[in-house]
Amino acid sequence: MSVLIVGSVALDSVKTPFGEANNVLGGSAVFASYAASFYGSVKLVGVIGEDFPKENLELLRSRKIDLEGLQIRKGKTFYWSGYYEFDMNQANSLCTELNVFSSFKPHIPKSYRKTKYIFLANIDPELQMNVLTQVEKPKLVVVDTMNYWIINKHEALWKILKMVDIVLLNDAEARQLCETANLVKAAKKILAAGPQVVIIKKGEHGSLMFTNSTVFAAPGYPLETICDPTGAGDTFAGGFIGYLASTNDLSEANLRKAVILGSTLASFDVEDFSLGRLKRLTPDELKSRYQEYQQLVQF
Amino acid sequence: MSVLIVGSVALDSVKTPFGEANNVLGGSAVFASYAASFYGSVKLVGVIGEDFPKENLELLRSRKIDLEGLQIRKGKTFYWSGYYEFDMNQANSLCTELNVFSSFKPHIPKSYRKTKYIFLANIDPELQMNVLTQVEKPKLVVVDTMNYWIINKHEALWKILKMVDIVLLNDAEARQLCETANLVKAAKKILAAGPQVVIIKKGEHGSLMFTNSTVFAAPGYPLETICDPTGAGDTFAGGFIGYLASTNDLSEANLRKAVILGSTLASFDVEDFSLGRLKRLTPDELKSRYQEYQQLVQF
Repeated sequence: MSVLIVGSVALDSVKTPFGEANNVLGGSAVFASYAASFYGSVKLVGVIGEDFPKENLELLRSRKIDLEGLQIRKGKTFYWSGYYEFDMNQANSLCTELNVFSSFKPHIPKSYRKTKYIFLANIDPELQMNVLTQVEKPKLVVVDTMNYWIINKHEALWKILKMVDIVLLNDAEARQLCETANLVKAAKKILAAGPQVVIIKKGEHGSLMFTNSTVFAAPGYPLETICDPTGAGDTFAGGFIGYLASTNDLSEANLRKAVILGSTLASFDVEDFSLGRLKRLTPDELKSRYQEYQQLVQF
Repeated sequence: MSVLIVGSVALDSVKTPFGEANNVLGGSAVFASYAASFYGSVKLVGVIGEDFPKENLELLRSRKIDLEGLQIRKGKTFYWSGYYEFDMNQANSLCTELNVFSSFKPHIPKSYRKTKYIFLANIDPELQMNVLTQVEKPKLVVVDTMNYWIINKHEALWKILKMVDIVLLNDAEARQLCETANLVKAAKKILAAGPQVVIIKKGEHGSLMFTNSTVFAAPGYPLETICDPTGAGDTFAGGFIGYLASTNDLSEANLRKAVILGSTLASFDVEDFSLGRLKRLTPDELKSRYQEYQQLVQF
């Protein structure tokens, strides 16, 4: 089954202690779509400006990513520049130019509307809700968010969280959203609102997946060099939902496997800027690192 | 086999968002010895003052903890007071009165000298080295340290690290000691100095155990309420070495099991002040939480 992914498409300039990359392909929908494309076809919804390089479109199309839902608007593409210091868990924004993204209204093409697996990447929760009014009975909706919406669209955010199956967020966001330092309490509060699953991403420390009756702890892959963490969370999400769609199996065991496959893809993403490492990634490398994950936790 | 544990014996006053406890039993050697006593006999080396409550001695003796090496000196017992805010990973010291601990010189009684399993809890690395000159061919020496010695006894600390089998430290200490933000690089640097195993404790995020050819990631146990984290690291260490001594098996598989058992004991320690929870802990509860750990990581 294919996956519908709605989010940002961006051009990023990133500087880290290991180098820099300017005007490279980025955005939540891009990382998530590219990761999901390792498991099957993807339908992308987003917006770009007239400045968006053609080779980026060709790269996405080469991965069976359907771009019918990618709007091209007058103006410039969403641009983000930032840097990381030695603590790679913390991005420092230098400049965020929303450009055409500021008036983005997701329009779901007719051919996308019956898609059963949907990932609503980090955009305004009101737009996320609007997407759900345009689709027909999805089987699984996964939603991501960020601190900006926790502060500025608190009510709308809680409303969308109640409408979805799986909530993804990072540890700082979970603490902020639920006003507790304790991640178990935070997860319980979100689960109480409606979703069946909450996944809290903890950067280098891996992630925790909560259901009403289980907890799964996935470790971070111990990397010696993290070149650029941009997109790791979205790569995780894309790999996670891509694998679930390809197997069409929402059992606890398969959700756990999806978390590890998402983590595996994210661990490759951070080894280079933009999609650099994912572009070079072979199925054998993916399989081999998945096996390393198994070794990593075995006792 | 029994375990020799050298470290501090203290009276603590601790305040956390969940309550407070005053003049309660604490110190690295106490938490480690109590935890190790779940697996076998312990020989403790430390120092107390004349003010040390007798019931504390009785409690330790009731757990097969040999106190022949516990010196009683004129003056007051080492006293620490501090508090934790909602981020339980960070202790805030209010007052540290070394008292009799300031002139502590570990003397290893004759009956202790052939002990095969030794835990050198966090004390001056020069004293840790001195302990090693007093014992006969131990099979396993585990050492812990803290930021104070990293700054003030840098050379002596590296010297002792080269003399031991297993180094335990927390993530902030590993980064500081090895001058790198990356824990994999830090572990490699320590392993290069001599020890066969490095264990980096990451508080609520669990721990990482490194050898020259393997990495093991142990999750933190997801607790909804952490009452008081004091002693968690020493409880981990005591459970870890206590189990290894009881099995006398240093295979990779058994080291991994020891890490999980140490983590399990530490997860109970933080549920109450001082030794409150460990005192009530039953073998069934310990076994049951160990099994929960297995569920926690299975995929």
